[in-house]
Amino acid sequence: MNDVRTYLEQKREEHLDELKQLLAIPSVSALSEHKEDVRKAAAWFVDTLQKAGLEHVEMIETKGHPLVYADWLHAKGKPTVLIYGHYDVQPVDPINLWETPPFEPSIREGKIFARGATDDKGQTFMHIKALEALLKTEGTLPVNVKLIIEGEEEIGSPNLDPFVEQEQNKLQADVLVISDTPMLGKGKPAICTGLRGLCSLQIDVKGTKGDLHSGLYGGAVQNSVHALVQLLDSMRNEKGQVMVEGFYDDVVDASPEERESFARLDHHDDEMKDELGVTELFGEEGFSTLERTWIRPTLEINGIYGGFQGEGVKTVIPSEAHAKITCRLVPDQDPHQIASLIEKHIEGHTPLGVKVTTTRFDTGRPFAASIDHPAIQAAARSYEAIYGEPAVFTRMGGSIPVVETFHRLMKLPIVLMGFGLPSENFHAPNEHFHLENFDKGLVTLCHYWHELANIEEN
Amino acid sequence: MNDVRTYLEQKREEHLDELKQLLAIPSVSALSEHKEDVRKAAAWFVDTLQKAGLEHVEMIETKGHPLVYADWLHAKGKPTVLIYGHYDVQPVDPINLWETPPFEPSIREGKIFARGATDDKGQTFMHIKALEALLKTEGTLPVNVKLIIEGEEEIGSPNLDPFVEQEQNKLQADVLVISDTPMLGKGKPAICTGLRGLCSLQIDVKGTKGDLHSGLYGGAVQNSVHALVQLLDSMRNEKGQVMVEGFYDDVVDASPEERESFARLDHHDDEMKDELGVTELFGEEGFSTLERTWIRPTLEINGIYGGFQGEGVKTVIPSEAHAKITCRLVPDQDPHQIASLIEKHIEGHTPLGVKVTTTRFDTGRPFAASIDHPAIQAAARSYEAIYGEPAVFTRMGGSIPVVETFHRLMKLPIVLMGFGLPSENFHAPNEHFHLENFDKGLVTLCHYWHELANIEEN
Repeated sequence: MNDVRTYLEQKREEHLDELKQLLAIPSVSALSEHKEDVRKAAAWFVDTLQKAGLEHVEMIETKGHPLVYADWLHAKGKPTVLIYGHYDVQPVDPINLWETPPFEPSIREGKIFARGATDDKGQTFMHIKALEALLKTEGTLPVNVKLIIEGEEEIGSPNLDPFVEQEQNKLQADVLVISDTPMLGKGKPAICTGLRGLCSLQIDVKGTKGDLHSGLYGGAVQNSVHALVQLLDSMRNEKGQVMVEGFYDDVVDASPEERESFARLDHHDDEMKDELGVTELFGEEGFSTLERTWIRPTLEINGIYGGFQGEGVKTVIPSEAHAKITCRLVPDQDPHQIASLIEKHIEGHTPLGVKVTTTRFDTGRPFAASIDHPAIQAAARSYEAIYGEPAVFTRMGGSIPVVETFHRLMKLPIVLMGFGLPSENFHAPNEHFHLENFDKGLVTLCHYWHELANIEEN
Repeated sequence: MNDVRTYLEQKREEHLDELKQLLAIPSVSALSEHKEDVRKAAAWFVDTLQKAGLEHVEMIETKGHPLVYADWLHAKGKPTVLIYGHYDVQPVDPINLWETPPFEPSIREGKIFARGATDDKGQTFMHIKALEALLKTEGTLPVNVKLIIEGEEEIGSPNLDPFVEQEQNKLQADVLVISDTPMLGKGKPAICTGLRGLCSLQIDVKGTKGDLHSGLYGGAVQNSVHALVQLLDSMRNEKGQVMVEGFYDDVVDASPEERESFARLDHHDDEMKDELGVTELFGEEGFSTLERTWIRPTLEINGIYGGFQGEGVKTVIPSEAHAKITCRLVPDQDPHQIASLIEKHIEGHTPLGVKVTTTRFDTGRPFAASIDHPAIQAAARSYEAIYGEPAVFTRMGGSIPVVETFHRLMKLPIVLMGFGLPSENFHAPNEHFHLENFDKGLVTLCHYWHELANIEEN
């Protein structure tokens, strides 16, 4: 391991330059105008995997953006690890809030700023560099590895499910490792044992066939924006509870033990308020902040638009109004069932004088893992060895649909060991990644492959 | 009058070409990028007034867009008419719904299509051409006239009030005539005896300092869009009633006679539904459609925006959300008082975890006139002489703040005789003006100046 550390230190600037190249590619999977950029990022990974010494590197076409696969399978008798990452990123708006442009990576105060720095280009890149470091210094890897890197994580991985279903042999492994979850805080490693699921919908309201003068027609017809507002407001009460009938029916209550363990974690609402710039937190009555984000489902409006958005006033009654909503789900809520309940709610609450249509977007099932699995315990030891701090077991409010896919289709144990920090502006302007965790994370991963090789021999 | 008719027939094509030039100028007063275009339209009017034979033509600077003034004062012993019009227009979005570009005037099926065709460039232009026709054929005018044409009507005439207050001598007249209100329908002239007032506000909601990942933070903090939705929904109930405390307190109920006269008008909800493309009309319980638009106040959301508006999904908790609202007011509601009541409502209903600020935009007081005034009766006779149909007395749901200004500051009787049709897409895509009313309206105006000269002599 000393050679590995030295190698990583010597190559650090070179690695950061490579990472900057990667982060400069605007691989926004949600926007069709970036289709070619997404492909460019896939090609960049193909090239980088080959140079790192991985084998069978290939770009795999799907109906959407391509997958990238690579492997190294010469550790006879040792376990096989499947590493998953994604090279696509979220859109960047509101662009005016970025201090430096999202696709012009910039290092300041020990952090690298760019869209994708932490989610998930930076962390996926680390996996390749950790393997490269082992191969270049030790000439071999302690375990067999397969990497699958996708370009559609941020749009719900629509083409990964069929691929995994069809290619179970190719992907067969003993454990799946993903670095796309945050640590608990600076210097506080965490292994995530639960993720929320996801279902998302667009709601489109159509009233009069065109916009109308609010003087001539105000009072005569339904206002589409007002109708949308009424409809959305009917979905949540003032206590933060979702009012869609049946929404909570399949929620499995967390055990008292689990809730107690969360209560012992180093979380402070006051710090969170400061960090987010609000005077109070808000959410479903009767649950702590960690509980509300980890073990309770939500219904959030991600965007709303209708009528005049320009400078000043325009006295119109808008003809159309639109909203995008996402629910975060917990075991055992089913995303399709929840989407159906919301659609039924909309049917039952559509205001007079408008038509409402819904479009379903991506879904992801919720996931929960056992903390007792040896691969998870080995990850905890690796973190402690490098960070000098025991890893805690957390859940995460986000969704990684692929986790549930692998869990369900391949029955794989899954280790979610990430190196990002919660404050690193995932999905928001000024996304960044702390280089401290870039450095320690690389060593932790190298350590982990050795740990895993030993464990599985026992 | 026969010479006038012949003159107008002979000059028709020339006049329409001139009108097209005027309509091609994108004088959108609300958008600062069109500042120079607004000025260009003012200059166009200065030029056209001079060529028409009006005198003392001048462009008058204000803090905003300029005013245009002209007069002709040689009808000794005859009354003086002040004619008001506006040369500014509404914004054009949604631009994609226009069949031909809003600033490329196009005549088809007897209508001229362009932003401003009916509101109010087209009708203001008619006034000049009617005066020109009288001057060129009769060598004189039956009455003295003053014209004041402004460039800020669509943004609430912020600079007209101080001007009128200061220049009462210059503007002194016996009657004010405005053509900016619609007829009741094709071939059905109407004189408007009441206008609603206006007050408008922008509501800005600010939550967390930046957008957040809806997975990591969903459940922990207030969602700005959801907070805005809750706030807006609290302002109106499902029966279309405004729930802002005190909102209806100063409303003067219309007399049973007036309500009965509205009920006798040729209005059919079914035709309106067809025209607007809706299956049902909607508004405050207990009032007919005409009553809801003429004698009842409203609170409308003109626009809403916050969070992600792009293609597909973006799983964010938006940091900001915005709405624009406009109230239409009836006698004796005071726009500033209503704005205060709304601000108080907002303070009392601000959801937890966000800050809400409001910005007041333009206001206009409601107005009601007496139908017995000789100048109004003369207008009715003029319509009947040309259209062969008696003019009915209506109210209008729209606001022309200047009407209330002149009424209040100069105690002028006001005649609202318009030539537009309600179906001509005021403030909406595909605004147009029927050339039938361009032709008949010109003759009606010439007739009216003669009627007015005779009346006042009795």
